[in-house]
Amino acid sequence: MDLKKIVLIPDSFKGTMSSGEVCSIMEKCIRRYYPKAEVVSIPVADGGEGSVDSFLAAVGGEILRMPCRGPYMEEIEGFYGIIDGGKTAVIEMAACAGLPLVRERLNPGKTTTYGVGELLADASKKGCKKIIMGLGGSATNDFGAGAAASAGVRFFDKDGKSFIPVGETLSKIAKINKSGICEELRRAQIITMCDIDNPLYGENGAAYVFGPQKGADPKMAEYLDGQLRAVSETVKKELGIDVSNLKGAGAAGGMGAGMAAFFGSSLQMGLEVVLDTVGFDRLAQNADLIFTGEGKLDYQSLRGKVVTGVARRAKKLNIPVIAVAGQVDDNIESAYDEGVSAIFSIMRSALPFDEVKHRCKADLNIAMDNIMRTIRLF
Amino acid sequence: MDLKKIVLIPDSFKGTMSSGEVCSIMEKCIRRYYPKAEVVSIPVADGGEGSVDSFLAAVGGEILRMPCRGPYMEEIEGFYGIIDGGKTAVIEMAACAGLPLVRERLNPGKTTTYGVGELLADASKKGCKKIIMGLGGSATNDFGAGAAASAGVRFFDKDGKSFIPVGETLSKIAKINKSGICEELRRAQIITMCDIDNPLYGENGAAYVFGPQKGADPKMAEYLDGQLRAVSETVKKELGIDVSNLKGAGAAGGMGAGMAAFFGSSLQMGLEVVLDTVGFDRLAQNADLIFTGEGKLDYQSLRGKVVTGVARRAKKLNIPVIAVAGQVDDNIESAYDEGVSAIFSIMRSALPFDEVKHRCKADLNIAMDNIMRTIRLF
Repeated sequence: MDLKKIVLIPDSFKGTMSSGEVCSIMEKCIRRYYPKAEVVSIPVADGGEGSVDSFLAAVGGEILRMPCRGPYMEEIEGFYGIIDGGKTAVIEMAACAGLPLVRERLNPGKTTTYGVGELLADASKKGCKKIIMGLGGSATNDFGAGAAASAGVRFFDKDGKSFIPVGETLSKIAKINKSGICEELRRAQIITMCDIDNPLYGENGAAYVFGPQKGADPKMAEYLDGQLRAVSETVKKELGIDVSNLKGAGAAGGMGAGMAAFFGSSLQMGLEVVLDTVGFDRLAQNADLIFTGEGKLDYQSLRGKVVTGVARRAKKLNIPVIAVAGQVDDNIESAYDEGVSAIFSIMRSALPFDEVKHRCKADLNIAMDNIMRTIRLF
Repeated sequence: MDLKKIVLIPDSFKGTMSSGEVCSIMEKCIRRYYPKAEVVSIPVADGGEGSVDSFLAAVGGEILRMPCRGPYMEEIEGFYGIIDGGKTAVIEMAACAGLPLVRERLNPGKTTTYGVGELLADASKKGCKKIIMGLGGSATNDFGAGAAASAGVRFFDKDGKSFIPVGETLSKIAKINKSGICEELRRAQIITMCDIDNPLYGENGAAYVFGPQKGADPKMAEYLDGQLRAVSETVKKELGIDVSNLKGAGAAGGMGAGMAAFFGSSLQMGLEVVLDTVGFDRLAQNADLIFTGEGKLDYQSLRGKVVTGVARRAKKLNIPVIAVAGQVDDNIESAYDEGVSAIFSIMRSALPFDEVKHRCKADLNIAMDNIMRTIRLF
């Protein structure tokens, strides 16, 4: 088979390979047999660390670096991506509020997203009409109030005193004033990417589910959950916006809710944002084959996950899709109906995950290599 | 790709699926996408139980049933296969000396291959010019002396008394007289199939390695090993044949050695016998694709195993070969040089063998199905 154009659009293999790494291995295998083929790599960003790189890899653009505040208000160098000829900015909140920045000083009660708001404001002032905000990998639980504060939102306590709320002081907010948000940011289209759909508070909320990995013991998690409940009430009263049942509101320590409440942003899953932003239908046009994949394909995950999303688009374009996954569960036949042409697992040994995960890159390489060896036969 | 003719020639997946079962699953997957294709199934026989069925499945023929003696000289119904228009017989020694026939009465010192010789003699008298003797799965350790006795070989003790030796009385043989072997059997070409290359005696010999599974405790194994050493000396003296270093001599309780010593048979690995017998080159002519496979592909096993053997032949015929294996080890790149076009593992979960072996048929089905889904794309 003479393949002239191949599109790669895999999700990350959670816990083992980023989407970009998967693309890179796939591309090398393809080039071994089709050195002249056009290979379009679209690593799927999920909002977390590496999301900016994913967008730049997919559509090109540049990184803009600037001084801003870190999780403890320390001065750090932040960054965001500029794509689409300067019209669109891509921010990952982890750039100034991510877990790696606090190391052992974990404390979701005291850390702030302040720097994220600085990036946001800067992007709008640089003329970006569309801003993609990636949530994920946060060290914070401040509802995005810090980011809102640096972008112009003012918070007042019951005595009318202005302050910058953190996770443990959200219940102190009595009044909120959004009038300080600059005109450019107010007019920008802001899309928030999150790869989870947890609510703001409650047993599936930000504090209980993600608090522990940010350093909260059970008591602190309970306290922070109460803070999120409180700010949810205040926001409803002050801004007339109800984020208590919003899916994804609990992403990045409640920043999902904050992005909706303070900036009128929609919350979206990574794949849809990527497909829209890169102009998938145009990019995939005339492609002979699409490769997608993810760490584990199972019946549950087929709903709303990358493989299914890609297959649905590809089906309309009449382009075959091969999915390459770490593990493949039973009962995944519905994937074929959605437009997946074939599914391959990269497994090749009867061994538990702990014993094979370190060699997943080699296994992906071998699996892809043999798929390409098969395709070129015909 | 329009596939008109496909050849299936897999080994068994040791411990989980017979070669015939693998063929059957592969064929169903192929028929799903290529209902009109000619599918030639050649299950590879290894000499053990099921070998007669494998040959009949590959080339057609009939089963001949006859009364004969079992491992304890009891009357049983034995069988062998007639192929090649009556010119060739296929015998599996397990038919009258196999482990399932003795159940809990395991005793490699007392059991006999007597019935196997009855089948052998019968086949030659029925006019078969070529006889394929499959070794494997035996309950015996009698050097094939029982089979020789029923086929006309006479054994005498030091007092000149004729007797039928068993495992524990091999050292009593003082004289051997082959003149009673009938003319037809003497002129027949006898090929012995064995899938191991163990020597007759010693630490890798029949008694020490396979004795325990036939019921020998360490003391009995040592005793039986001594008996095999003794008969090897006697055979050398009496018949002028040295089987002490013959590869495969230790198969089926030393019957490998006996087949060489008493009947002048060559010992061969299953694949070569199958390829020769079925006329592989002719069968594979004009095939678009060959599927082979085995339970585990590793660097060591590539030497002299089914996948490599098939690939070498296919390479000369210029036909692509896809290998489907249970597990695939590192460093199997040499398989590509031998003529394997692509290799796929049927694994799809990071789980230990005990947890996946029960579903290996489902896993083979899924893997083959997706390979066929991929091929039909192009």
